[in-house]
Amino acid sequence: MIYLDNAATTPLHPEVARAMAPWLSEGFANASSLHGPGVEAAAMVDAAALPVAALAGPGPWEVVFTSGGTEANALGILGSFRRGRARRVVTTAIEHPSILGNVARLGEMGAETIRVAPTPAGSVDAAAVIDAVDASTVLVSLMHGNNEIGTLLPVEEACREIKARHPSTLVHVDAVQTAGRLPLATTLSSVDMVTLSAHKMHGPKGAGALLVRRGSRRPTPLYRGGDQQAGIRPGTENVPAIAGFGAAARLAAQTISSLAPLMQALEAAFMEALGERPACTPAFREGPRVPGHIALRLIGVPAEPVIHAMEARSVIISSGSACHSRSSARSHVLEALGLPADEDVIRIAASHETTVEDMRKAGEALRAVISDLAR
Amino acid sequence: MIYLDNAATTPLHPEVARAMAPWLSEGFANASSLHGPGVEAAAMVDAAALPVAALAGPGPWEVVFTSGGTEANALGILGSFRRGRARRVVTTAIEHPSILGNVARLGEMGAETIRVAPTPAGSVDAAAVIDAVDASTVLVSLMHGNNEIGTLLPVEEACREIKARHPSTLVHVDAVQTAGRLPLATTLSSVDMVTLSAHKMHGPKGAGALLVRRGSRRPTPLYRGGDQQAGIRPGTENVPAIAGFGAAARLAAQTISSLAPLMQALEAAFMEALGERPACTPAFREGPRVPGHIALRLIGVPAEPVIHAMEARSVIISSGSACHSRSSARSHVLEALGLPADEDVIRIAASHETTVEDMRKAGEALRAVISDLAR
Repeated sequence: MIYLDNAATTPLHPEVARAMAPWLSEGFANASSLHGPGVEAAAMVDAAALPVAALAGPGPWEVVFTSGGTEANALGILGSFRRGRARRVVTTAIEHPSILGNVARLGEMGAETIRVAPTPAGSVDAAAVIDAVDASTVLVSLMHGNNEIGTLLPVEEACREIKARHPSTLVHVDAVQTAGRLPLATTLSSVDMVTLSAHKMHGPKGAGALLVRRGSRRPTPLYRGGDQQAGIRPGTENVPAIAGFGAAARLAAQTISSLAPLMQALEAAFMEALGERPACTPAFREGPRVPGHIALRLIGVPAEPVIHAMEARSVIISSGSACHSRSSARSHVLEALGLPADEDVIRIAASHETTVEDMRKAGEALRAVISDLAR
Repeated sequence: MIYLDNAATTPLHPEVARAMAPWLSEGFANASSLHGPGVEAAAMVDAAALPVAALAGPGPWEVVFTSGGTEANALGILGSFRRGRARRVVTTAIEHPSILGNVARLGEMGAETIRVAPTPAGSVDAAAVIDAVDASTVLVSLMHGNNEIGTLLPVEEACREIKARHPSTLVHVDAVQTAGRLPLATTLSSVDMVTLSAHKMHGPKGAGALLVRRGSRRPTPLYRGGDQQAGIRPGTENVPAIAGFGAAARLAAQTISSLAPLMQALEAAFMEALGERPACTPAFREGPRVPGHIALRLIGVPAEPVIHAMEARSVIISSGSACHSRSSARSHVLEALGLPADEDVIRIAASHETTVEDMRKAGEALRAVISDLAR
């Protein structure tokens, strides 16, 4: 099997599994317990926060570990709003459902919500986001890398200007698709909150984080319980998953500088093997992109049979977001982009474990599949 | 080390670790993905729901996997309330903080909240709970086993009568401390929602569940995102932890009938070794209890030095709830019970991995520690 669905989830790195192992056996204590084993688990949680925070630059960041990116996004959005102050919330129309859904909920609670439309190239104009923000804006949420089509949004430019004009507006960035793939220190230098997810960077499922810049207003908890995670996120910490998240972040930091050229080589190998196919063309490549993420526009060929035919050839790819895959409705991203009804998009997402040979085979397989299906 | 803090968390059973292993390696796919590996992960999640639901009896139950017991409690409480209908919510004063905190939040949202006071024996009167419920009551939440003092609450009697009188009142039970330790089918036969936690039954951290009886009103999600868990709990499923939860539930079902006599033997060995100590006496033993959970009342000796002295003798015990251990405030349970200021409570919580010899040593160690400290 050649696994090219790394935007949905990634295989656990063997070193991550090794980092988790002790906390799945002897080190099983509750990190809130006062006894020695509990204190050791708590110290590991604190230690794991360091490499996780470092993915987003110097901050300084307070790390709030959550169950994953969806919960971190919800905490950043819902936790930043105070009911009764009906004010503006700005986002884009191509965010993850965990942003759009919770922004919509703020709308139901009285906020004025603005979803900035994407450009035809699959990103957004920084100026359009900046202009949507006014003095009453309580929160802006921008994704860095789009999970369905792999485009980058102009986070640095938009957030710098928004914070310069409106220092009290909170700015949140969903960096789930780019953390560990791109250096983020400059990108996130004016941002108040950042969402990360371990399982998108060869860490385990069950661990995400909301980074909150020290000095920025902290979000209100989504629900109440014990005193864990500075009172912002109650519940027994998922100690093994957090250990794995720390290890994955550390590994990502070590490989990040070599990732860009590797991904370039992988993408080139795939494109060459795929060749020119009018029914299947690389898309949304005008601007900067998530390294290793290839979006392909299908014309006259629906995505689902392509995905299954690719799997029959031992190549795992996907269309759109896994979070919505069971729904028959069209992806909101493709809707917002105004894709014609007879067009669809599939994604090929490599990782540092992918080889040039994998990509060559995948490109050839797709070429054959499209030849079969596009007749 | 003799670990007797199994009410805070339990060691992972080796068979649970084995059940998780494939999902931490080859089986890493996103359970929402349409491709084969994704469908396999989704099928495992569905399969794991069966033994988890079976812990609570025939139901039939819809299983909503969460990140743990705290989130499941929050979902049951917050998700059952509709703003604008200021109605009554009934619970007890000795619930877990994830119940009391979220009930308090409903109070801030306009609900009339009633916290039934405990009896001196550390339980509640079923009649007091039943009488607190009126026709306007939207929700009742009762814990089955208390996490700090090990008492059982009269869930069966109270819930049966409440549902008979007020069929539209939702009844939620936090069974985190008793699931897998006691057969629950009869106890929960009139209940709408049940909270379970994997890591209290030798499963992994990062997996809990809210069981919702089919036909009962489903809770509103705490936050929005993808379509996972029937839309009630968005976010990529923690596939390995859910696999572990299923295995832990299956193992618990196999050992549950032999647990009661084993726990009796363990408790007896501990009591005999401890002997009679006026400064340290078994407490809250008048009524039914969580098997293997011993609460000890300390008179004139604070809990914290006892816990540390026990650890120096290689026995891990605790006081109160791990979820509040970092706070210097006194436990709300001991407050509600009106414990005098010079008294404290420690808990000894065994598991099926504990031996009679462990308990004998622990009792002797505590006897020596109390002799040292109570002078």
